Amino acid sequence: MTGSIPETMRAVIKAERGPGLQLVEWPVPEIGPGEVLVKVRAASICGTDLHIYNWDEWAQSRLKPPFVVGHEITGVIARIADNVTSVKVGDFVSLESHIVCNECYYCRTGREYICENTQIIGVDRDGGFADYIAVPAQNAWPNDPRLPLRVAVLEENFGNAVHTAMAQDVSAKYVLVTGCGPVGIMAIAVAKAAGARRVFATDISDYRLKMAAEAGADLTINVMKTDVINAVLDATCGEGVDVVLEMSGAPSAINQGFALLKYGGEVAMLGLTPGPFTFDLNTHIVFKGAIVRGIVGRRLWDTWYQMRGLIESGAVDLTHLVTHEFDLEEFDEAYKVFMSGESGKIMFHF
Amino acid sequence: MTGSIPETMRAVIKAERGPGLQLVEWPVPEIGPGEVLVKVRAASICGTDLHIYNWDEWAQSRLKPPFVVGHEITGVIARIADNVTSVKVGDFVSLESHIVCNECYYCRTGREYICENTQIIGVDRDGGFADYIAVPAQNAWPNDPRLPLRVAVLEENFGNAVHTAMAQDVSAKYVLVTGCGPVGIMAIAVAKAAGARRVFATDISDYRLKMAAEAGADLTINVMKTDVINAVLDATCGEGVDVVLEMSGAPSAINQGFALLKYGGEVAMLGLTPGPFTFDLNTHIVFKGAIVRGIVGRRLWDTWYQMRGLIESGAVDLTHLVTHEFDLEEFDEAYKVFMSGESGKIMFHF
Amino acid sequence: MTGSIPETMRAVIKAERGPGLQLVEWPVPEIGPGEVLVKVRAASICGTDLHIYNWDEWAQSRLKPPFVVGHEITGVIARIADNVTSVKVGDFVSLESHIVCNECYYCRTGREYICENTQIIGVDRDGGFADYIAVPAQNAWPNDPRLPLRVAVLEENFGNAVHTAMAQDVSAKYVLVTGCGPVGIMAIAVAKAAGARRVFATDISDYRLKMAAEAGADLTINVMKTDVINAVLDATCGEGVDVVLEMSGAPSAINQGFALLKYGGEVAMLGLTPGPFTFDLNTHIVFKGAIVRGIVGRRLWDTWYQMRGLIESGAVDLTHLVTHEFDLEEFDEAYKVFMSGESGKIMFHF
Amino acid sequence: MTGSIPETMRAVIKAERGPGLQLVEWPVPEIGPGEVLVKVRAASICGTDLHIYNWDEWAQSRLKPPFVVGHEITGVIARIADNVTSVKVGDFVSLESHIVCNECYYCRTGREYICENTQIIGVDRDGGFADYIAVPAQNAWPNDPRLPLRVAVLEENFGNAVHTAMAQDVSAKYVLVTGCGPVGIMAIAVAKAAGARRVFATDISDYRLKMAAEAGADLTINVMKTDVINAVLDATCGEGVDVVLEMSGAPSAINQGFALLKYGGEVAMLGLTPGPFTFDLNTHIVFKGAIVRGIVGRRLWDTWYQMRGLIESGAVDLTHLVTHEFDLEEFDEAYKVFMSGESGKIMFHF
Repeated sequence: MTGSIPETMRAVIKAERGPGLQLVEWPVPEIGPGEVLVKVRAASICGTDLHIYNWDEWAQSRLKPPFVVGHEITGVIARIADNVTSVKVGDFVSLESHIVCNECYYCRTGREYICENTQIIGVDRDGGFADYIAVPAQNAWPNDPRLPLRVAVLEENFGNAVHTAMAQDVSAKYVLVTGCGPVGIMAIAVAKAAGARRVFATDISDYRLKMAAEAGADLTINVMKTDVINAVLDATCGEGVDVVLEMSGAPSAINQGFALLKYGGEVAMLGLTPGPFTFDLNTHIVFKGAIVRGIVGRRLWDTWYQMRGLIESGAVDLTHLVTHEFDLEEFDEAYKVFMSGESGKIMFHF
Repeated sequence: MTGSIPETMRAVIKAERGPGLQLVEWPVPEIGPGEVLVKVRAASICGTDLHIYNWDEWAQSRLKPPFVVGHEITGVIARIADNVTSVKVGDFVSLESHIVCNECYYCRTGREYICENTQIIGVDRDGGFADYIAVPAQNAWPNDPRLPLRVAVLEENFGNAVHTAMAQDVSAKYVLVTGCGPVGIMAIAVAKAAGARRVFATDISDYRLKMAAEAGADLTINVMKTDVINAVLDATCGEGVDVVLEMSGAPSAINQGFALLKYGGEVAMLGLTPGPFTFDLNTHIVFKGAIVRGIVGRRLWDTWYQMRGLIESGAVDLTHLVTHEFDLEEFDEAYKVFMSGESGKIMFHF
Repeated sequence: MTGSIPETMRAVIKAERGPGLQLVEWPVPEIGPGEVLVKVRAASICGTDLHIYNWDEWAQSRLKPPFVVGHEITGVIARIADNVTSVKVGDFVSLESHIVCNECYYCRTGREYICENTQIIGVDRDGGFADYIAVPAQNAWPNDPRLPLRVAVLEENFGNAVHTAMAQDVSAKYVLVTGCGPVGIMAIAVAKAAGARRVFATDISDYRLKMAAEAGADLTINVMKTDVINAVLDATCGEGVDVVLEMSGAPSAINQGFALLKYGGEVAMLGLTPGPFTFDLNTHIVFKGAIVRGIVGRRLWDTWYQMRGLIESGAVDLTHLVTHEFDLEEFDEAYKVFMSGESGKIMFHF
Repeated sequence: MTGSIPETMRAVIKAERGPGLQLVEWPVPEIGPGEVLVKVRAASICGTDLHIYNWDEWAQSRLKPPFVVGHEITGVIARIADNVTSVKVGDFVSLESHIVCNECYYCRTGREYICENTQIIGVDRDGGFADYIAVPAQNAWPNDPRLPLRVAVLEENFGNAVHTAMAQDVSAKYVLVTGCGPVGIMAIAVAKAAGARRVFATDISDYRLKMAAEAGADLTINVMKTDVINAVLDATCGEGVDVVLEMSGAPSAINQGFALLKYGGEVAMLGLTPGPFTFDLNTHIVFKGAIVRGIVGRRLWDTWYQMRGLIESGAVDLTHLVTHEFDLEEFDEAYKVFMSGESGKIMFHF
């Protein structure tokens, strides 16, 4: 199969320091020791991609153009380095976007998701909005060949939802999901699959709340129109919720989540706030005897095994989450739809 | 409502040391401090009741006739002692069968299920195959008034299943349930509700395996007809299972369960073996790095809250588990059906 | 022994809405059902007692004078209600200050420390800066008769330290204790007893840091004089700490604790801040993958059993923590010393 | 330093299928990709080495002579393969004896100790009773250069003790250690370091029980002379123990341990029994609500970090555990002392 790999390829790149992206002809990457080359079959857009597109403060401080963008990727192994045994040419894989060092304290204690040397594809090194991408072999997760592309492409992002929802036991419990972007919607599906008593979902977009309901939310609340505190207290006989999955990063939603949390309740925080804000540790955490967990990335590889179980069993159905598909050439249009807020996941097919 | 309580009632009792039971006229019990009187609305038969009926070795060593039998009970509060505030007359309740002391080390550390002074209704004191039963107020668990009697009557027994299945995380995991009596069947339903990847069920009765399949088992195996080791290894690509829920008490099933357990897997043991047997600790536990938990009763009251969540949300549906109903007068007939092995739960209505 | 109980007694009370306390002659309390009367042998002063003395905002909103103050109490059972079996007249006991309902969701799931109906002695009902106090029998914890009074009197407060330090595993880990009031000092001793790798302690008082060192702190840092971030990073080869026990309630200390926390580290928060403040959830919790737990009171009764084990084994030595003793008549002087900040625990003897 | 490495070395090998060992001149091993060559500075003898020496049933079924024996090894890095970054030439290291694949399900979920492709040095490939040994770089754990050789050489074995003792919380608890070989003795020291309430130790050798007492056991019991059940019940006011650390593999000791276990207690099993035996699951596990964990090897690398913390802080002192030292040439004499049962650890110096 090696013979058929060209020397150059299409790639969407951040060409220089500033807003926007460019589609260019770019060298097919070489693979280093222990790496594999993946022929990309599908890719999807994440919120981080938008920060990169818009060249915001975070992007300016972290990125070093030029590089290929994109980190939600699925494809087929096209080439492997010597001694790679975990996958073989032709395998259908999804990519873990965090490249970890395997040597730091965190990697050596089963917590690679907080590896102190993490590199992210499409951010710190070349990503996969391109025909090919090179990654370490361990970042290529083998899929069942029958898995639909539109599910396989979501696994990296789905992993955030699984990591968050599974960070505490949700079975038979009241769960509140604050923020119904794609990760929030997938977290709703996971909580339902794990036997949550009821799942409540909040957002400011009716479009997203409709998707939340389709994913299984028992009650969806538009916080612009409805008093979320009263709504959830009404729905729980005044009890409040056992678990909050925080996906919004909005200080108002965070405060609502903690206000609704039962004593001894648990909060998993994935959303990033715009910055520090005034927070009441006494009321929200100390007096409540609350347990709060920060969530980053995916547990490597526990989360991926959990994903496999949830998808294979049919407990979670991701087939309808991609709402728009584009050719790579249409990337500007794709980002425009993404920015509208009126979409689920947006996928590039190849 | 007090005025309407008669002085005597119907009761099925173990009258003297020996096999069999009798239906007699019996005094309606007085309630002591902190107790409530429950007008029984439904009751169901458990395996323990059969030991009592047959007057086996265990029964001979523990029981002190005469006493009213029966410990799976639902009904309505008819009278309460002074200062009882947790329930009121008219409440629809199911009964926790274990009366605990609230003062021993185990009760004082949130582990009332292993209270060293446990008394069981229908075993150590008067039970509820009768028109009325007296129990401590805390043993009366208030139900939603709309809960069907045929579900409410099962809660005590369902609690064993919930305690066993929830003793470890089963989400996204392969689960093997060995033994498909009613508790095994309910444990299958709980494991599926909690998002198990696949649930495998074994038994020697096709009748019960059919019920197991209806409860959600992905693969049912009659160990008299099929090689269970091969069947489960085939179904798991040679991996084996992550969790075993042991409900049979059969040494052969226990050995099969451990043989199929993955390294690092978890086993919850509820079934009681006929006695000690030759067991390979090295292979089954030490080399495997297995975690084994003994399960008794229900966590008080964590398990009851979990039950409420699972039933209320519809995650577990128990409405079809009662396969036979009888009047209390037909108790001998009811026990006969129970002994046939061709039944789900058997209920007395009042 | 009943015959010797007088009708009135000495008691330090908050007589009316406003600063200060009064020593008065007061009726010896009656005991209700399930209660015991305790002849007080020693009592000690807590930070909460100072809020009450000073009549601050919290005190104004919560307290309903007149009532007897004081909630850290040890003594001897002088009288018991009918049916009390857990203790008997003559038993030497320390008092759990939180009176819980045993009926709410939290009490019924082994989490009485967050009981939604908690009443605190010396705050919500009569306390024990008096010759006698009445409490529910379950609040009287029996001590070994040989336990020194100056240890027994500290148990309630020691329980806060044990609850906080034991809320996560500290064995073989770097632990930072921010705030070296008595609870912080005792938490240092617990962390050392549990095998912490090194314990670092911060405060603004050299007096307290000296006590911290005596309790076992490996490094004490006066944050007014030393850059705590550099000091702890130096002492840990740049790693930071695995666990923070937050005892100060000072926003600056909280920020320092989180800044020094390793990725994936754990924080137990007992200290109360003066109010909401600007907090960086992203940096401190989300990106770090931190786990944060709010701590209230003592686990009932797990913490008391842990205390018994730690004291009895000699793993923790509390005998030197009381630095000043007073007669009850000298209460104003005692509070004055307490306010000076130059003391350990201050005890009243009887 | 490379220049000084000779082509051959001294090595103690299992030369052929049968009892005994031989000291021979043997090629210094080549290192493969990712490996390091270690100049051995000290080695110690483990029970497994005796099985190999005696050529028992287990040895016959597993071993493939000729190979160099020995798996408890410390030394200095003499050479590293290209791209090795975790250690450098001159580093003082102790060796993890289990070489794991990093690719199986267990390795990929932080449980390398049950890697399904584990190879053990000195068993499945060349070991370290020799001047040099080659291992993967990740198996070389860097020590503080000041760590005494007689401590460094014990780390592999100490890791079994730490893994077992830390598999459950022992702080403030009664702990029973059954079997006082070196691992049992070290487990006693760990349990004390972690704040156990009291540690009880049983064995059949007074020599070993004396070492157990020196390691911190509060009560040592020679089961040949004393009724262990009565002795421990007496010492615990009839309560029994919270935790059993099973190090003996003796069915009688296992039964005693379970008999003494409290309801809800925890058992960590490291010892291997001579084979299956009659075991009472009902009484020992189910009715007790016990939790039993099989223990294999060391958690990679959590256990090594814990060891570092315990040794560095002085919480555990291993300096007196080596009771005999030999030159490699005296290996037959060393094994003879080992077989006598009258020794602690036996070390070869180089």
